Amino acid sequence: MAFVVLRESMSTVQCVLVASADAGVSTQMVRFATSLSKESIVDVEGVVSLPKEPLKATTQQVEIQVRKIYCINRAIPTLPINLEDASRSEAEIEKAEQAGEKLVRVGQDTRLNYRAIDLRTPANQAIFRIQCQVENKFREYFLSKNFVGIHSPKLIAGSSEGGAAVFKLQYNGQPACLAQSPQLYKQMAICGGFERVFEVGPVFRAENSNTHRHLCEFVGLDAEMEIKEHYFEVCDIIDGLFVAIFKHLNENCKKELETINRQYPFEPLKYLEKTLKLTYEEGIQMLKEAGTEIEPMGDLNTEAEKKLGRLVKEKYGTEFFILYRYPLAVRPFYTMPCYDNPAYSNSFDVFIRGEEIISGAQRIHLPELLTKRATECGIDASTISSYIESFSYGAPPHGGFGVGLERVVMLFCALNNIRKTSLFPRDPQRLVP
Amino acid sequence: MAFVVLRESMSTVQCVLVASADAGVSTQMVRFATSLSKESIVDVEGVVSLPKEPLKATTQQVEIQVRKIYCINRAIPTLPINLEDASRSEAEIEKAEQAGEKLVRVGQDTRLNYRAIDLRTPANQAIFRIQCQVENKFREYFLSKNFVGIHSPKLIAGSSEGGAAVFKLQYNGQPACLAQSPQLYKQMAICGGFERVFEVGPVFRAENSNTHRHLCEFVGLDAEMEIKEHYFEVCDIIDGLFVAIFKHLNENCKKELETINRQYPFEPLKYLEKTLKLTYEEGIQMLKEAGTEIEPMGDLNTEAEKKLGRLVKEKYGTEFFILYRYPLAVRPFYTMPCYDNPAYSNSFDVFIRGEEIISGAQRIHLPELLTKRATECGIDASTISSYIESFSYGAPPHGGFGVGLERVVMLFCALNNIRKTSLFPRDPQRLVP
Repeated sequence: MAFVVLRESMSTVQCVLVASADAGVSTQMVRFATSLSKESIVDVEGVVSLPKEPLKATTQQVEIQVRKIYCINRAIPTLPINLEDASRSEAEIEKAEQAGEKLVRVGQDTRLNYRAIDLRTPANQAIFRIQCQVENKFREYFLSKNFVGIHSPKLIAGSSEGGAAVFKLQYNGQPACLAQSPQLYKQMAICGGFERVFEVGPVFRAENSNTHRHLCEFVGLDAEMEIKEHYFEVCDIIDGLFVAIFKHLNENCKKELETINRQYPFEPLKYLEKTLKLTYEEGIQMLKEAGTEIEPMGDLNTEAEKKLGRLVKEKYGTEFFILYRYPLAVRPFYTMPCYDNPAYSNSFDVFIRGEEIISGAQRIHLPELLTKRATECGIDASTISSYIESFSYGAPPHGGFGVGLERVVMLFCALNNIRKTSLFPRDPQRLVP
Repeated sequence: MAFVVLRESMSTVQCVLVASADAGVSTQMVRFATSLSKESIVDVEGVVSLPKEPLKATTQQVEIQVRKIYCINRAIPTLPINLEDASRSEAEIEKAEQAGEKLVRVGQDTRLNYRAIDLRTPANQAIFRIQCQVENKFREYFLSKNFVGIHSPKLIAGSSEGGAAVFKLQYNGQPACLAQSPQLYKQMAICGGFERVFEVGPVFRAENSNTHRHLCEFVGLDAEMEIKEHYFEVCDIIDGLFVAIFKHLNENCKKELETINRQYPFEPLKYLEKTLKLTYEEGIQMLKEAGTEIEPMGDLNTEAEKKLGRLVKEKYGTEFFILYRYPLAVRPFYTMPCYDNPAYSNSFDVFIRGEEIISGAQRIHLPELLTKRATECGIDASTISSYIESFSYGAPPHGGFGVGLERVVMLFCALNNIRKTSLFPRDPQRLVP
């Protein structure tokens, strides 16, 4: 008999003992059980048994013959969203509509307003378990390659490394902002002798981007490492890391992936054992041949990236690839120029299903060159002097990259909205719950 | 021969080829090598060999017979702090002083001002590798107990769960603040069906506490779990977790611990295989017997905690213990009262070497009781209605705890200042680097 002890906490709840009959389930208990509102928390005492006939509509192989039911915490009679409605796939809803039946469609905003209920859907339970696995594999891979996990401050003076808009605040009377990346700090950790570092932590962007792929706060997976000979050493880490993650998810998270697939159908991600690397020039040449002209020293827009993703999938059979050697002009000032042609840079982006997920590069470790590049990019070098100075105390060549955890999960599972892979998403309109 | 390839990045550096003699080291190369400023980055080409006589003043077992030296990045001639000075123990300095020699003592603030150099000391390299191991073991233990790793938002509306001072900011025109703990969100994740969750992430406290143990930003290790029968289930997790962490550090990080010990000598932490649990009443009784009177329904101050730590160490031979069943009045409003005496609570603190590192409790999962307790504590329940409401959609009994990563490392290694275990610490006076 599986006996559930009366909880200490229950002294403060109304406990109803329903049936104590030794055999069978009393009518009184059935009446009590059916009177409980959906999503109430109960303790059940009963006998675990193997059913004679297989159970329908479930994957469970055993059943419990209930002797007693205690209500631990009663949910309100009418929940703001119904779990059954929230768990339904679009296909089911459309099928019902064709049959003339109207099923409730729970919108993305309503889901997020009642996230504590919405998170209980099988798909959401699977999504966040997958997310946890991605992070685990990320950490495991880095630790196996002698990276050290660090934590850099999120409260910083000034305005982070420039670029994207920052959240500003007062720090004991000093102007401060929230780090929009751990860029400067992971570089300082490399200067500090750690050789290879990684960080998992929040990243803040005060951008007014209302898209399916932008958040104002997301989880950054960042890495920075000494480069011994060539910045492809960083690309090799990305290759090994993501192939390991993809393989791990496909092999060890089958149940979760199937569960997500039931509500949000998707095709498994196509990737190669050895990740494809194309130069930026090769990329724009492929686009040109397909009728899309790109400014050779400019950048790819989202549409061009999508199209390139399709072309690469057709030609090489992969939806995961690295595009490297970007024009210097479209990268941040701290990006190392190519040694053979300073119009290009030792940099790269990485794409999944035609969407950029990683940006990375070799960084300039030479104070003079860093000053020169900042000035060329219109940045007053004196405002970033402490950053530049930190490379004058002995700084090894190094490079790294950053990737958003939510984007990896969204694109691996081909979900249509990054809000589906953030536990409590923050976008320009949403700060609650 | 260990050949070091010319780096791409070197095209932008002055590369000096010093010697190409096939045998021996030329005078020219020696002159070049000695002219290099300390902490410059070099590539060395040479032959690895086993020395005939053991090498002095080093633990290395091999040497490299240098054929070529390339300077990759030259450090400035005079560094703001000298690594040799920064690596010295207080004992060495005092010994030298007694012999009439004056050695440089690098102060804590100077170290932090030049953290990129200071981090290169053997002790600092060891401290942050230990910190990474603590986090790894924390995650590993939780994953083995079926906890799911989550990431809750740090940008939140209103003022977190009340209590400590918060950093305020504007979020697209709305008042927002930085989370001072993931409390509400980890509870919502439990309501969201995850059963057991943990989080590693930054925690922000706008407190003007200038002590050896407070930071304005630190790394929180948090956990929350469903309670099946008794909140001791949470204590059991803490027991298992910390004993596993301590054991792991002692067994697998011997080298790092020895390195820290050389600069900052400390006694290994005394702990028991099964963690000691004392009630708050037993604790104040021990203090009373030792001459310190504590208000029975009040709280322990830092001094009393220190003294209790000493008494427990003497009596039970452990510096790690759990004190439970605190008076309800000294705990947050969401703490579950004891079922047998509501003047006490289902709560606990955990101590290492006489300093509190963990605070935890069973939380109230019943909306009515939560409203009642908030009101009794002078909190207007309408201001936290969405928090209270979230327990009306079906919420299981649950509890959890939070611990600061920096404090665990500081206290395990008996370091005297939490700034030593934060990579780039933030205190009321410090926002840089």
